[in-house]
Amino acid sequence: MATAATGTTRAGIDHLRAIVSGDVPPPPIAVTLGMTIASVEEGRVVFTADPSEFHYNPIGIVHAGLAMTLIDSAIGCAVHSMLPAGVGYTSLETKVNFVRPLTSETGTVSCQGSVVHLGRRVATGEARIVDSEGKLYAHGTSTCLILR
Amino acid sequence: MATAATGTTRAGIDHLRAIVSGDVPPPPIAVTLGMTIASVEEGRVVFTADPSEFHYNPIGIVHAGLAMTLIDSAIGCAVHSMLPAGVGYTSLETKVNFVRPLTSETGTVSCQGSVVHLGRRVATGEARIVDSEGKLYAHGTSTCLILR
Amino acid sequence: MATAATGTTRAGIDHLRAIVSGDVPPPPIAVTLGMTIASVEEGRVVFTADPSEFHYNPIGIVHAGLAMTLIDSAIGCAVHSMLPAGVGYTSLETKVNFVRPLTSETGTVSCQGSVVHLGRRVATGEARIVDSEGKLYAHGTSTCLILR
Amino acid sequence: MATAATGTTRAGIDHLRAIVSGDVPPPPIAVTLGMTIASVEEGRVVFTADPSEFHYNPIGIVHAGLAMTLIDSAIGCAVHSMLPAGVGYTSLETKVNFVRPLTSETGTVSCQGSVVHLGRRVATGEARIVDSEGKLYAHGTSTCLILR
Repeated sequence: MATAATGTTRAGIDHLRAIVSGDVPPPPIAVTLGMTIASVEEGRVVFTADPSEFHYNPIGIVHAGLAMTLIDSAIGCAVHSMLPAGVGYTSLETKVNFVRPLTSETGTVSCQGSVVHLGRRVATGEARIVDSEGKLYAHGTSTCLILR
Repeated sequence: MATAATGTTRAGIDHLRAIVSGDVPPPPIAVTLGMTIASVEEGRVVFTADPSEFHYNPIGIVHAGLAMTLIDSAIGCAVHSMLPAGVGYTSLETKVNFVRPLTSETGTVSCQGSVVHLGRRVATGEARIVDSEGKLYAHGTSTCLILR
Repeated sequence: MATAATGTTRAGIDHLRAIVSGDVPPPPIAVTLGMTIASVEEGRVVFTADPSEFHYNPIGIVHAGLAMTLIDSAIGCAVHSMLPAGVGYTSLETKVNFVRPLTSETGTVSCQGSVVHLGRRVATGEARIVDSEGKLYAHGTSTCLILR
Repeated sequence: MATAATGTTRAGIDHLRAIVSGDVPPPPIAVTLGMTIASVEEGRVVFTADPSEFHYNPIGIVHAGLAMTLIDSAIGCAVHSMLPAGVGYTSLETKVNFVRPLTSETGTVSCQGSVVHLGRRVATGEARIVDSEGKLYAHGTSTCLILR
């Protein structure tokens, strides 16, 4: 629970960069699904993952859950990167379109999340999952509630 | 890959029931995230899961990815349960609303997915995640492409 | 602007019932698109409309905008029906699936919106559009922000 | 019905440009809601509209239905602009986030729709509504089925 506890006492961007640098351990879901935060800027966060057989669904490709988790994470962290210390957020909803199947042959994918709108009470963002050649696999949007 | 291979040669409902009975091993994502198919009827499939610390996000609650994966799975399997042998499907998009946080204190949750519309080329469905007392945690909808 | 002005001084359900009874004029969008509030209960509001050629899109069927407007309206009003005087709401997002085309041959359709979750800050709801025989044309969900 | 009839016999981009030039009358919904196609490129279509009191909802701002109709239209036409003669499309679902209220004071808004993915059977796109200074009011995504 060290990760969550740290989150409240510093600005979002500092918390996220502490995860990238290894000063703060990655959250459990990132370990479970093999997701890594690759870079953090204000309003823009990139995750990477290696689609693998442990992500597979009953029909023999990576489960849509990996794309959804990456997209929700990248947008949420992009929003978090713009919040000062002591201000939290939570996802209200996320919607993802799946445009190509991910398989263990796809190689490392990156998911860049960006803030589209940051208001006082609500933020929205979008994210896309692409492979190393920029081919698109999924894209989505989220609505977050800002907890000031 | 035994799971995917079996899927094409029998009706969806028979394939799903073979997973419930243990004749077909569960798909890898179900093992990774601790999801189980609890029941299968025509057009209605229930998953269960125990929200746990290995699902946690950086802000100290279960990551939205668990709810999204359960909802996408339950709807996709509900659609699959209505398809004859040799007919496949794939999720085109899934949208999930998160209405309460899941934590390791929540206990076992169930996610019931139902088909809303089954057409020749496209199906839609909806699902809800509730705890043992029926309290709602998340709900969502999906669009699936039918591959005849 | 009489409609909006009235909204703030009484409970949502009373305001909506005043529209049904004709004591408060219908909002302009309802006149523009030919939508009528048919019934109001706590947490459940039904709109009706007659799909007509003035709703048509460039490909010769009713534009998806009619279904989206009905669904957003029915859910928003269902949420409003549960709010006390002085408490407002606004739609944060709405997502609609279109499962059959509406045409001027469809006849009167009804759109029933229901509250799925009502929290202190956020509410969610769902709605379906059906014809007089119960055949489904569209369904959707919304997230509303509660302005207390 | 002249509009729909023309649609099938030429490439999408030619049909849309004939609406812009006035050779083909605008579709009825565009007249009803006061929407105009301002420009058409391959994969990118811009609509404009003047938010007005006839678009108002019961709470005294423009109904979300205007933004949804613009966004669904702009994305659908962007997809149509990439389709050859004889190939049609239909919206499967559209999701819109509302980030600021539109009023009759907002002035002319434009809604640019772009194709995100064009596959053989399915296309996705996104659109944003901005005012003359580029301020964002709404953004959304759609999934379209391609009818080859």
